Amino acid sequence: MSLLVVGSVAYDSIETPFDKINDALGGSATYISLAASYFTAPVNLVGVVGNDFKPEHTKILEDHDIDLTGLERIEDGKTFRWGGKYHYDLNVRDTLFTDLNVFENFKPKIPEKWKKASFIVLGNIMPSLQSLVLDQLEKPRFVLCDTMNLWINNTKEDLLDVMKRVDVLIINDSEARLLTDEPNLIKAARRILQMGPEYLIIKKGEHGALLFGDNSIFSAPAYPLENIFDPTGAGDTFAGGFAGYLHKTQDLSFENLKKAVIYGSTMASFSVEKFSTKALEGLSNLEIHDRFIEFRELSNF
Amino acid sequence: MSLLVVGSVAYDSIETPFDKINDALGGSATYISLAASYFTAPVNLVGVVGNDFKPEHTKILEDHDIDLTGLERIEDGKTFRWGGKYHYDLNVRDTLFTDLNVFENFKPKIPEKWKKASFIVLGNIMPSLQSLVLDQLEKPRFVLCDTMNLWINNTKEDLLDVMKRVDVLIINDSEARLLTDEPNLIKAARRILQMGPEYLIIKKGEHGALLFGDNSIFSAPAYPLENIFDPTGAGDTFAGGFAGYLHKTQDLSFENLKKAVIYGSTMASFSVEKFSTKALEGLSNLEIHDRFIEFRELSNF
Repeated sequence: MSLLVVGSVAYDSIETPFDKINDALGGSATYISLAASYFTAPVNLVGVVGNDFKPEHTKILEDHDIDLTGLERIEDGKTFRWGGKYHYDLNVRDTLFTDLNVFENFKPKIPEKWKKASFIVLGNIMPSLQSLVLDQLEKPRFVLCDTMNLWINNTKEDLLDVMKRVDVLIINDSEARLLTDEPNLIKAARRILQMGPEYLIIKKGEHGALLFGDNSIFSAPAYPLENIFDPTGAGDTFAGGFAGYLHKTQDLSFENLKKAVIYGSTMASFSVEKFSTKALEGLSNLEIHDRFIEFRELSNF
Repeated sequence: MSLLVVGSVAYDSIETPFDKINDALGGSATYISLAASYFTAPVNLVGVVGNDFKPEHTKILEDHDIDLTGLERIEDGKTFRWGGKYHYDLNVRDTLFTDLNVFENFKPKIPEKWKKASFIVLGNIMPSLQSLVLDQLEKPRFVLCDTMNLWINNTKEDLLDVMKRVDVLIINDSEARLLTDEPNLIKAARRILQMGPEYLIIKKGEHGALLFGDNSIFSAPAYPLENIFDPTGAGDTFAGGFAGYLHKTQDLSFENLKKAVIYGSTMASFSVEKFSTKALEGLSNLEIHDRFIEFRELSNF
């Protein structure tokens, strides 16, 4: 079965110190699917859009062999919109607006033919909806779950429920501390592993990422980017590259998860070099391979 | 010639969330020399203490084959004292007091027999004093220099002068940004390399360290410590392990500098596990080797 991706499809309005853009293609499922599409095909996407979702954006997804059978279209609604502004150092951003629109009543429906999916990526949506996805699947073998501070603060019980059902949880360092109330990141990681997931990935932005297993830790470097153009979607892109590589190789050993983390980091490093999904629309396999090798040189001693 | 270390010798009073200690052995030259002593011997130390410097502390240094010919003793003065308090997350500390005492009028005097020294570590002291050290040396081959935000803010011109004369500068990430007024760390590093040093090390605390050369970057992971007991001296210990390994191997290639960074990180990871210099007083070569290998496993993929 193909990789199944559930999450948001959105239009983003982004302002950075360098440029601004309105109604650019965005959303967690979009970034995840595009990144994964470089490793495995087709990618099955479940999400929702309104009547304003443009044919040119449908085409971008379909050109990457993303199956949109599960992309619901609400004819009397508008697509989810998010607006954000990045500060000078790009590590800080303000949300300017969040118009949920059709996303407000989103209840992910897994198409009948996809219910046997074994590899699932739960993009960063409300934890109760992530559980709803899992409820519809017959026997998932591998579930990757992304989350954020909003759900830790507002729907923690639901998050703890879904965490018991996932294989890999992805969060960032401040969220790991928030979830456990533990400032030491290594201790925080141990506690999170006790909450259910077999593996944990802690993203640290410009400091790379950490992968935790039962008795193993892997530290992935960050790619040394001099020009970060737009950080939007970097975390989703990481998840997509990670899951895409795992689905391609079907090898869930810790050693292979390390490589998947580097492929996730590779895809994210490309993503932030251009606005919106632009960088993810036209990569070559050679570029991806070369950057993977650069990651090896960066950390090898 | 032996490794030459110049810096402070101090008594530290440290408060952490776990314990407190008064008048513990400290100072940049102390940590640097102790760490380096595991790689090369003797280590030649230049510094100053007062009449209150205890024989037991002299003995600790001498037991590690640290030559104290250059440790000036001011009979009517008191040893430099520093007091600090660490917050719960140990990344934040308040300086409680700084009593410079004999350090206030410290003018490093290099003993005649050490003026041919070729490997020098300039601990974190006033930049004009670091220059004064270099003025006294005949032909240094390799100069490692540590600095801090205080000198960037207060004596920047002096710091820029000494930077033109050093081979490796060590600073932390916030200091790199402060020195260049550039939020992107990679760009900041490039600018610092243009200011003189051939190599630059940016320490990132719990996120590891970066080594920059002309066209090369190396990303060193942080050791995953669950129990950090006392971060005091971690940066100095890093510098000592780094310089000690380089002096032992006499190989200044980028590949060997990478290994030196890992040995520096190894020594720092031990140092923070106990109060003051306690951890650095009784390490075995096997422990150091084993942790070096752990660093490799942590980042290898």
